[in-house]
Amino acid sequence: MTDHGYASGRLDLPFVGISTFGKRPYVADWDTLDADVAVLGAPFDGGTQWRAGARFGPRGVREASTLFSFGHAGAYDHEDDATYLPADVRIVDMGDADIVHTATEKSHDNIETGVRAALRAGALPVVIGGDHSINIPCIRAYDGPEYSGGAFHILQIDAHLDFVDERHGVRHGHGNPMRRAAEQSYVSGLTQVGIRNVSSTAREGYADARAMGSQIISVRQARRMGLEKLLDSVPAGVPVYITIDIDAFCPSIAPGTGTPSHGGFLYYEVLELLQGVAGRNSVIGLDLVEVAPDYDPTGSTSILAAQLLLNTIGFIFHARGQSPTLVP
Amino acid sequence: MTDHGYASGRLDLPFVGISTFGKRPYVADWDTLDADVAVLGAPFDGGTQWRAGARFGPRGVREASTLFSFGHAGAYDHEDDATYLPADVRIVDMGDADIVHTATEKSHDNIETGVRAALRAGALPVVIGGDHSINIPCIRAYDGPEYSGGAFHILQIDAHLDFVDERHGVRHGHGNPMRRAAEQSYVSGLTQVGIRNVSSTAREGYADARAMGSQIISVRQARRMGLEKLLDSVPAGVPVYITIDIDAFCPSIAPGTGTPSHGGFLYYEVLELLQGVAGRNSVIGLDLVEVAPDYDPTGSTSILAAQLLLNTIGFIFHARGQSPTLVP
Amino acid sequence: MTDHGYASGRLDLPFVGISTFGKRPYVADWDTLDADVAVLGAPFDGGTQWRAGARFGPRGVREASTLFSFGHAGAYDHEDDATYLPADVRIVDMGDADIVHTATEKSHDNIETGVRAALRAGALPVVIGGDHSINIPCIRAYDGPEYSGGAFHILQIDAHLDFVDERHGVRHGHGNPMRRAAEQSYVSGLTQVGIRNVSSTAREGYADARAMGSQIISVRQARRMGLEKLLDSVPAGVPVYITIDIDAFCPSIAPGTGTPSHGGFLYYEVLELLQGVAGRNSVIGLDLVEVAPDYDPTGSTSILAAQLLLNTIGFIFHARGQSPTLVP
Amino acid sequence: MTDHGYASGRLDLPFVGISTFGKRPYVADWDTLDADVAVLGAPFDGGTQWRAGARFGPRGVREASTLFSFGHAGAYDHEDDATYLPADVRIVDMGDADIVHTATEKSHDNIETGVRAALRAGALPVVIGGDHSINIPCIRAYDGPEYSGGAFHILQIDAHLDFVDERHGVRHGHGNPMRRAAEQSYVSGLTQVGIRNVSSTAREGYADARAMGSQIISVRQARRMGLEKLLDSVPAGVPVYITIDIDAFCPSIAPGTGTPSHGGFLYYEVLELLQGVAGRNSVIGLDLVEVAPDYDPTGSTSILAAQLLLNTIGFIFHARGQSPTLVP
Amino acid sequence: MTDHGYASGRLDLPFVGISTFGKRPYVADWDTLDADVAVLGAPFDGGTQWRAGARFGPRGVREASTLFSFGHAGAYDHEDDATYLPADVRIVDMGDADIVHTATEKSHDNIETGVRAALRAGALPVVIGGDHSINIPCIRAYDGPEYSGGAFHILQIDAHLDFVDERHGVRHGHGNPMRRAAEQSYVSGLTQVGIRNVSSTAREGYADARAMGSQIISVRQARRMGLEKLLDSVPAGVPVYITIDIDAFCPSIAPGTGTPSHGGFLYYEVLELLQGVAGRNSVIGLDLVEVAPDYDPTGSTSILAAQLLLNTIGFIFHARGQSPTLVP
Amino acid sequence: MTDHGYASGRLDLPFVGISTFGKRPYVADWDTLDADVAVLGAPFDGGTQWRAGARFGPRGVREASTLFSFGHAGAYDHEDDATYLPADVRIVDMGDADIVHTATEKSHDNIETGVRAALRAGALPVVIGGDHSINIPCIRAYDGPEYSGGAFHILQIDAHLDFVDERHGVRHGHGNPMRRAAEQSYVSGLTQVGIRNVSSTAREGYADARAMGSQIISVRQARRMGLEKLLDSVPAGVPVYITIDIDAFCPSIAPGTGTPSHGGFLYYEVLELLQGVAGRNSVIGLDLVEVAPDYDPTGSTSILAAQLLLNTIGFIFHARGQSPTLVP
Repeated sequence: MTDHGYASGRLDLPFVGISTFGKRPYVADWDTLDADVAVLGAPFDGGTQWRAGARFGPRGVREASTLFSFGHAGAYDHEDDATYLPADVRIVDMGDADIVHTATEKSHDNIETGVRAALRAGALPVVIGGDHSINIPCIRAYDGPEYSGGAFHILQIDAHLDFVDERHGVRHGHGNPMRRAAEQSYVSGLTQVGIRNVSSTAREGYADARAMGSQIISVRQARRMGLEKLLDSVPAGVPVYITIDIDAFCPSIAPGTGTPSHGGFLYYEVLELLQGVAGRNSVIGLDLVEVAPDYDPTGSTSILAAQLLLNTIGFIFHARGQSPTLVP
Repeated sequence: MTDHGYASGRLDLPFVGISTFGKRPYVADWDTLDADVAVLGAPFDGGTQWRAGARFGPRGVREASTLFSFGHAGAYDHEDDATYLPADVRIVDMGDADIVHTATEKSHDNIETGVRAALRAGALPVVIGGDHSINIPCIRAYDGPEYSGGAFHILQIDAHLDFVDERHGVRHGHGNPMRRAAEQSYVSGLTQVGIRNVSSTAREGYADARAMGSQIISVRQARRMGLEKLLDSVPAGVPVYITIDIDAFCPSIAPGTGTPSHGGFLYYEVLELLQGVAGRNSVIGLDLVEVAPDYDPTGSTSILAAQLLLNTIGFIFHARGQSPTLVP
Repeated sequence: MTDHGYASGRLDLPFVGISTFGKRPYVADWDTLDADVAVLGAPFDGGTQWRAGARFGPRGVREASTLFSFGHAGAYDHEDDATYLPADVRIVDMGDADIVHTATEKSHDNIETGVRAALRAGALPVVIGGDHSINIPCIRAYDGPEYSGGAFHILQIDAHLDFVDERHGVRHGHGNPMRRAAEQSYVSGLTQVGIRNVSSTAREGYADARAMGSQIISVRQARRMGLEKLLDSVPAGVPVYITIDIDAFCPSIAPGTGTPSHGGFLYYEVLELLQGVAGRNSVIGLDLVEVAPDYDPTGSTSILAAQLLLNTIGFIFHARGQSPTLVP
Repeated sequence: MTDHGYASGRLDLPFVGISTFGKRPYVADWDTLDADVAVLGAPFDGGTQWRAGARFGPRGVREASTLFSFGHAGAYDHEDDATYLPADVRIVDMGDADIVHTATEKSHDNIETGVRAALRAGALPVVIGGDHSINIPCIRAYDGPEYSGGAFHILQIDAHLDFVDERHGVRHGHGNPMRRAAEQSYVSGLTQVGIRNVSSTAREGYADARAMGSQIISVRQARRMGLEKLLDSVPAGVPVYITIDIDAFCPSIAPGTGTPSHGGFLYYEVLELLQGVAGRNSVIGLDLVEVAPDYDPTGSTSILAAQLLLNTIGFIFHARGQSPTLVP
Repeated sequence: MTDHGYASGRLDLPFVGISTFGKRPYVADWDTLDADVAVLGAPFDGGTQWRAGARFGPRGVREASTLFSFGHAGAYDHEDDATYLPADVRIVDMGDADIVHTATEKSHDNIETGVRAALRAGALPVVIGGDHSINIPCIRAYDGPEYSGGAFHILQIDAHLDFVDERHGVRHGHGNPMRRAAEQSYVSGLTQVGIRNVSSTAREGYADARAMGSQIISVRQARRMGLEKLLDSVPAGVPVYITIDIDAFCPSIAPGTGTPSHGGFLYYEVLELLQGVAGRNSVIGLDLVEVAPDYDPTGSTSILAAQLLLNTIGFIFHARGQSPTLVP
Repeated sequence: MTDHGYASGRLDLPFVGISTFGKRPYVADWDTLDADVAVLGAPFDGGTQWRAGARFGPRGVREASTLFSFGHAGAYDHEDDATYLPADVRIVDMGDADIVHTATEKSHDNIETGVRAALRAGALPVVIGGDHSINIPCIRAYDGPEYSGGAFHILQIDAHLDFVDERHGVRHGHGNPMRRAAEQSYVSGLTQVGIRNVSSTAREGYADARAMGSQIISVRQARRMGLEKLLDSVPAGVPVYITIDIDAFCPSIAPGTGTPSHGGFLYYEVLELLQGVAGRNSVIGLDLVEVAPDYDPTGSTSILAAQLLLNTIGFIFHARGQSPTLVP
């Protein structure tokens, strides 16, 4: 089959082809993972308190990520005069964790298994939610032999504190993950950025968060601090796990989410925070949650999520000197 | 306050006023229910296997129901030359059962409590889902002293059989309710109408359903049978509980649902079936499920649900000679 | 009915329950109003000159307001370290004023009656439009014995001046309300903020407005002035009535309106203006108009309106020391 | 400018060009009308009782009508083996009647003026609503010297009877037009087809309609009658004015309307009725109302309206032997 | 990695996982194809004359196809009492043909290459468009050694005749494919079903089609004929290539397409035609075109396409006695 | 016809009337053009690499432009205290260039013919795309006797560099226009503003652009420069052609486009740049491209485009002292 036009390569326009993350290879057998970055979908939205729909987040973000595939090798950014994600940063798509409807714990366990598989392979886990409750199994996956990087800090970018301990017996909904994370011995602290307005966390939750080592920063506070001070809220020299709730952003660019909250961040504010952290700290994991494509009629939210993930992965490996090994 | 225009009554156009079901009174205290019909919302959609969103079904159907409120006393139908739902049919809106995210059983228990309250008050329970799993607590509510009508038949109007026993431990999702119902001693049989295409129930489920007393009728089979024969599939003289999954309908008029399935019923087919059953059997309860307003950009699905419910309640009480007591 | 889970209280998630404003009680009989805040819907949109649809504004804002109900007592804001809207701020929903299609004056009269009822009860009237013409009857309601606070200033937050006197006989459309207001003896002046671009008011209208005591401030002018100077444009010590046209905001967050206009305010700009005014002046009434939910596919506009109203009511009563009596 | 590709004619694809009706010439000066068919927009929707938006009906139908312009001369229909609308059927677009917001009567008067202008020119008036209240001025325009065809019958195709005399003073809303028409001495009778379900007309309205010479036929009755009998409900030898409310159709194909009603007509049912009437009776005027493009996300409703209008005009002039003079 | 829940298999709910067609394996290297069915995307829509968007058809249909994946082996249809698509029918997804924007011929050549690859592998080519022009390269691919089945008949299910020879030089747009097909020596005839209303083919095109061996059947004609006679329009004993333009269907269920046309087929009409043909003739190829997901807000059209394709493939291999070899 | 209400003029609300640009006259015969501004639609989108749909840009922008028509003479801007576009600025709508599907060059030629016609008439060409490839024929039209202004500079406002020379033979897609422009001898330089993120132009394209005289400025760079310095990037005293890709803007206000890119400009940033250039340089032509109304559910993008065009035309003629002659 050497005589046709494909022999000289595909143009591979963005709208062409199967929607894996960044059009990268799909690896169904997690025992054979061999990559620098392993992207896992976690399509669980049973933890939501307003609109559901984040179960289609992984598919939505995957398709949006193909918009940034023009068939070039790497992604040239003229502002930084850098080509991110050259061919030697090997990204694979693990597909999705298996989800069991009506069964929160089983679904979470399956997500945890996926993250452990990525860690075991030495790949950076990048998890696409799903609602924010899927951060719970993501963090749990770092408690065993698959991860050897030591205690880490969590940078949460979010509109909501998500620090409810328990209400009506609920401990694993999308209002609980940061509390669950803070309880882990290997989580050394939290920086919670973008927090604003009324949410499911009551006054007590804020007090608890601060008592458990959290620094809480609103959008306006972050703006007043400036990027440098904001970056200082993440301790130097400590590995960092980043969790991004898309509702941290202004609904003007991220309407496709369960619980939009006005007054959120604009694009560059978060992009520069992520670029800064990637340059200062070793990033050991990443999740991006609460993208609900069915509430995103223009595609803006999924495109935002895809832009952020591709850029952040680029920043991380650029900071590593493109060296593909994950040694936190 | 006697000198203003309101003294002579409101015009009360459909778009005006609080969206309770049919603009009927809201009764928050279920201990004080005194009505012929008690409408309960059951906004649980944790049992879905494709699109969620039925949690907004009760609100969507309530708002759509106001379209049929033009401030007249009763609803005149020129085809039947009858005025349905005269003032002496007392309908109240109970509001919604309390839902606990991530907790299927708790949510179901709360729905069951609501249905029991309606039955205790002697009112016809009319439950608006939520996904089809909410039929499980609805049926459970008939096992105690609140209901004294004896064994009853279930008429299910649906695209899917919903007869899965258990998969990966799931027994209370939206693929299971008819199996759970058939297991009850006080359910004497099922008529399952509209069933078509591939679904979550595999071949074994169909065999089990038939073995447990179910008659399964597809859309095309129903059309070939004609209305009279179709009505004969519901035993005479037996109380009937009706459960309507909106996906029984053709997606052309009911796109706003979790798992649309082509080839469904058109409007009059179901309307006449309901009118027929209401005329022949004593209807002891009713639920309508799987309306997901966020997938219903034109409002067609919610309007269909509202039309069906208002008409069916009208038919039931017309058949009772408008007598408002529920004595099955 | 003491043995079920409801005895210990509901979780009452945002998506659960009847959509009254903030899930507060609905009071249909306006003679029995006993509240600090009385919310009235004014679903009239016959005054529009581009897209209609504001008739569904009250319902849209009501439903969006339930997003901020997580079953907590009060709304904790960590930036202000304050809990707004504690239980002793009694808010009720009056439902909607009766609207008569094709009859502007009758509809306006019915709205006026509702505002008078709120004032008579000593409650703060909060009116949800409808198009901006509904401000006309709102202001008219302050001319009688129901209100005894003396002359007041109007703070209008809007893209358009709405100061047309008359065109083709039209004096009560949505381009006329500020002219009608300025004509009242008990209106001491206007601050018109956010005004920009081409609109239905021609050059003469601007001259007239200034001549009749109005200060006109564009978005860019407001930004150059800064918050303090902007607040100074509202005279100290004078009661203030606030009218918010949602198109004052940038279409990026408020697309769901009749006549969107680019270059509008962002969220905090208006929020801080409202917080400032609530802290400096006695607010005697409030309307928010031109939310058209059918042009708001993501819900962003209704959510914005609900956030603004809940916050502003909170600011007003926080400033009053939570004291619930309306004595301007 | 004779040397470019346009010299040999345009391909003129449907998506190219200004959206006049059928891409026909726009005649702004109604004193110079010289045509067989004059299309007038009547963008008034102040008479609606549920969703507004029909004000954009004329623009929506115009744009949809361009879909049927492939640059051919005439429209070949292989089923009839006929080419409709050959070049000698001269259609012009009059643009819209001037509408005055908040002023029903003024707006109606302006519509009436437009229809009179069409009649005066000897053209067949084809009016695109707007809500159904615009039929009132359309019918009024036939009372003077512009029309000399004598008493005529009205064929209404609609879901709703629209026969309310007066409620709360309203006599010119979209629930009143058929009553207003029946009151005219020159209207000899009505055939009302498609009427179904609950509407703004109460039982008394039906009795009045029958007493005033109306024959009321539901969708199911029409189907049982068959086309021939249905056609017989329109008296032979009498001029006919046709008024089509798009909600006569099933919401499956016409969701973009103010008050959708399930159980409506499918496409061929109405098409064949129109073709039959055009073949049997002299059609002296036509309006099509209640298309609300903003509730028509797929364009289906506007396309339906455009197909119907183009086909019906074709049928009318085909029946006239293509002779372009309007002599009823 | 043997100790986790995945060891016992996935539940694999429809919303979980990468969107290949039917969740079947993706084979990027077309030289290694080894399958019974090879699904190829042809995302070219440069041939459209109204709305574009069919370039996203392959992705839309792929995602919709996952709705029918509930993790069962095969698809049980209770009406036929048959399990279609058992494990031994090996379906693979080839991904998409490479598309070059602004270059129709190059894009078509790349599609042709893909179909040839499928044929060479002995697999049934199933091509998802893309606009109908992609049928041109599909048919061209049968002219060489990859296909040895001899002359074949084409069954086109479509609203439009697509038989334009040339206009303004265009010969490979979506109005031309059936003309191009009829010109091939190895195409023995055409049956064109569903043709109706005005389209890009003028009167001459119809005459040409008949002269070149085509039988043209409208929707109403097909209904009058009945299924058996309709099936007789496809010659017995001849291999058949099937091309389905989704606009053959009524816009009520297939609005998401470039040029919707009212009066189209309903679901069972086409399903039974396809089932009949699959049972009588050897089907040697299949394309389904003109699905434009961005005009399909409810997903109805993509779901219809997926249902049709999965069912038709099932019928074809059921008729072959599940025997997986393609020997026409 | 002097006795009706139209004699005294129309109110001419925005939603009334045929959608030509700004409700200005449509001139079909380009040989008779006599205007200061000639607006041409160029509905070609065959050059797109992600979403198509810009073919409906001209119609969408035209309709949106009617929102700014309130029947006043001129557009009063209170910030500038100026009335723009007084009656003596004569704007006409040329309709659309003829487009030939599948034929990029023919379509481009037809666009070029239209621009030449405008130039020949001494009118300012204002072209509404279509995708950005339509800039190619726009620029080509300045190479002949129709334009005598000498070499000019291009100001491009865009997210993407569009400087690809050739890929897979494509030289006239929407990623190529600036390269094609830079190749012209009469283009003296380019200022490319708003460029950001990954796009179809690889690193080499940036180097080439700079080598060919281009200054590339990102959004963040433009913000850091400030308006004055940004304006300085356009050489003084040189005629300027402006090309605006709507994706230069933040997707929050311009989601309705083919390839949205986060981090774009807000409204005033571009407005003030355009006002500045119009005041400093002679503007000889203008195109605005990539508005895709079908991805713009709220209308925000079309309204933005219409506001920009009307304002920019106003600025240009205000700077000319309203003098209507185009003498660059």
